[in-house]
Amino acid sequence: MRVLGIDCGSQSTGFGIVDSDGQDHRIVAFGALRLPAKDAFSRRLLEIHKKIAQLILDYEPDSVAVEDQFYLSNFKSILKLGQVKGAVILAAEQAGVPISEYSPLAIKNAVTGYGRAEKHQVQVMVKNILKMSEEPKPHDAGDALALAICHIHTMGTRQKLGLEERI
Amino acid sequence: MRVLGIDCGSQSTGFGIVDSDGQDHRIVAFGALRLPAKDAFSRRLLEIHKKIAQLILDYEPDSVAVEDQFYLSNFKSILKLGQVKGAVILAAEQAGVPISEYSPLAIKNAVTGYGRAEKHQVQVMVKNILKMSEEPKPHDAGDALALAICHIHTMGTRQKLGLEERI
Repeated sequence: MRVLGIDCGSQSTGFGIVDSDGQDHRIVAFGALRLPAKDAFSRRLLEIHKKIAQLILDYEPDSVAVEDQFYLSNFKSILKLGQVKGAVILAAEQAGVPISEYSPLAIKNAVTGYGRAEKHQVQVMVKNILKMSEEPKPHDAGDALALAICHIHTMGTRQKLGLEERI
Repeated sequence: MRVLGIDCGSQSTGFGIVDSDGQDHRIVAFGALRLPAKDAFSRRLLEIHKKIAQLILDYEPDSVAVEDQFYLSNFKSILKLGQVKGAVILAAEQAGVPISEYSPLAIKNAVTGYGRAEKHQVQVMVKNILKMSEEPKPHDAGDALALAICHIHTMGTRQKLGLEERI
């Protein structure tokens, strides 16, 4: 199973691709899309959409995992984040790749075993799980890798419980 | 000048196309995209993106106008609205059509002459300005037509003031 995790953000969007056979996880690629703040926001959306579509084309993931955010204080930020998420989800849907959403709690729980873990603990655990020599940088890329791991774990648990057949 | 106004919404997205020579406004088309709530949200985003891209292809607007929302109480609604807006803006940007955003206050002001006008007054004025036999239905389509009128008025005022040359 190959999973593309995407950590959407209005300033920077992280991505991380992880392969797994259910036992071993292997890191394939990671990074972040940062676009010049001087560009019009619509131009940035276009670039994000293009780059995610290209990542899907190049790496052919079986699934895309995004975060199901539940809280941000600033109205403008939420609306911008929503627009980035729209462009990202659209790229996956256009490529026919199924999309799963995970809450921050589910992501932290899957990666650290503790839903209220600190952000830094998540990065450390991502490094350990994926046997990386250092913590992933930038941290958006680490969050995207955590999303991919969360999806892999969730799928693994579902298979173990035989939920696949029941759905 | 031909303007495509789009009133983004997570349930229904209105659109309205208006032609203007600066003096007279002519209604070209209007309607709303309502998608089955049973469909996955990502599927709805795909359909909205497709339909807006098709509208742009069919009607070749010079500009697209969207609302610059400033307040919604529900976090989930804002995030969904943002995703729809992302798909819509992406379609315009991909087609190379310039996008303008207008605040609810600017829209009401342009259409009714009063920034705090009631929603219904906007619909009545849209009907009058575009010489329609009845108020546009559904009301999302009316809001989209109001957006198009707002853009036309704003461009007219800018030209009168000679702002075009100064920018």
